[in-house]
Amino acid sequence: MKFRRSERLIDMTNYLLEHPRQLVSLSYFAEKYGAAKSSISEDLAIIKETFEQRGIGTLHTLPGAAGGVKYQVKVSDEAAKPFVEELCDLIKSPERLLPGGYLYMNDILGNTTIMQKVGRLFASAFADTDIDVVMTVATKGIPLAYAVGTYLNVPVVMVRRDSKVTEGSTVSINYVSGSTKRIQTMLLSKRSLEDGSKVLIVDDFMKAGGTINGMISLLEEFNASVAGIAVLVEAEEAEERLVDDYLSLVKLSGVDVKEKKISVENGNYFDKK
Amino acid sequence: MKFRRSERLIDMTNYLLEHPRQLVSLSYFAEKYGAAKSSISEDLAIIKETFEQRGIGTLHTLPGAAGGVKYQVKVSDEAAKPFVEELCDLIKSPERLLPGGYLYMNDILGNTTIMQKVGRLFASAFADTDIDVVMTVATKGIPLAYAVGTYLNVPVVMVRRDSKVTEGSTVSINYVSGSTKRIQTMLLSKRSLEDGSKVLIVDDFMKAGGTINGMISLLEEFNASVAGIAVLVEAEEAEERLVDDYLSLVKLSGVDVKEKKISVENGNYFDKK
Repeated sequence: MKFRRSERLIDMTNYLLEHPRQLVSLSYFAEKYGAAKSSISEDLAIIKETFEQRGIGTLHTLPGAAGGVKYQVKVSDEAAKPFVEELCDLIKSPERLLPGGYLYMNDILGNTTIMQKVGRLFASAFADTDIDVVMTVATKGIPLAYAVGTYLNVPVVMVRRDSKVTEGSTVSINYVSGSTKRIQTMLLSKRSLEDGSKVLIVDDFMKAGGTINGMISLLEEFNASVAGIAVLVEAEEAEERLVDDYLSLVKLSGVDVKEKKISVENGNYFDKK
Repeated sequence: MKFRRSERLIDMTNYLLEHPRQLVSLSYFAEKYGAAKSSISEDLAIIKETFEQRGIGTLHTLPGAAGGVKYQVKVSDEAAKPFVEELCDLIKSPERLLPGGYLYMNDILGNTTIMQKVGRLFASAFADTDIDVVMTVATKGIPLAYAVGTYLNVPVVMVRRDSKVTEGSTVSINYVSGSTKRIQTMLLSKRSLEDGSKVLIVDDFMKAGGTINGMISLLEEFNASVAGIAVLVEAEEAEERLVDDYLSLVKLSGVDVKEKKISVENGNYFDKK
């Protein structure tokens, strides 16, 4: 079956988007489309130019016999800024306020379009970092962890707070919640994380950082290391923060329950990534 | 800024893949690329042909002033079958066996590539169904629900078994687990589901169907209706099943703990979708 260039461009675009951070050899495409490698190279040059100009991502070409092409999500600050603004506006809406000054966030975490966009931003920030797996803690962090994991093309590992028979044997740790100072437990299935893994920790919300600190302690039990930390929202905390090297998209700078006012600003994403 | 056809094809492909089941007007593309509507129509005809030939999906063109184009995931049985086979092989691996005859599934549920593929299959099966939201129960169903929700371009709603302050006010129900006959509770945040929503219920595993039946009861409290039910794995159950109209990809037909043998076969996906 022969393909015209236009058909190749469409199918290759789809293929690359579905296989981020994966090296695809020119021979693979050449065989798939019954085309010469030189034609495939020309196709890739057009795709690369369009991907980069339109903010879809980058294509890295590796020359030589073992070479090929690798697509990576890359969102420019110019494209990211309006989205983070939008997110800030969404989060500061006073209807989110729950008793005790908590914020209702389920609508945002349940919005697959928003999760995809947040996933793209974090995958973009960690595109050049060596990451084997994304880790989060059930339940609210899961949507975001999957979005990031999908764009980074790595699996997701879920830490739980309760033990389930379907986890098999687990490793559990106790940790102290940073804001409430209560002792809590988290556990991870033994076989879910390989020794020595490089782990990107993702969560929806960080206050003092106790939960994230707990995940870091858990990683030590697996001889795994922290490759990065990414949170959707960080809350400004009077007390000392337990975690310092992280990326956040939105910063919650104040919640006034009486006045029903939520103050937010951009997180450290644009400064620290 | 002017675009060549090749650039338009690449960027339109990316745009359509990111906006499934959404009507995009020809004017939108015409303006975006500074091209005549007739050229855009030609582009779309090429994309449609390639999408359909390569099993990426379908493009529906709606004529007229309010018209435009809509992309939909559509996986052919021919493309789906080898994947379901692969999934069956993966699930029947004896290392999954846990004490009590339970199966370890975290590696499959944590695999973002597999989740994307399963999401494509279910989104494809329900592509022509009117669905407002995907619902699942925490924790293990969440990855799959997001994958399906992303391809259907609808939000995801998460039912929980425990109450959290960040849920706001909730509606809770008691239900009887089908296999253990124990009374259990599930709850859903009041504001997470609109009155009258059409809901696709998604879960990783179904035995007698008690959990899914619980979700159906919960929907009644919200005046919402079941648009469909999709599970990754169904277990053959001696007792009467509580749910009958569902799609499954894999059917667990037997677990022999002593012989360490797991028997699986295709679910009803290919017959019932």
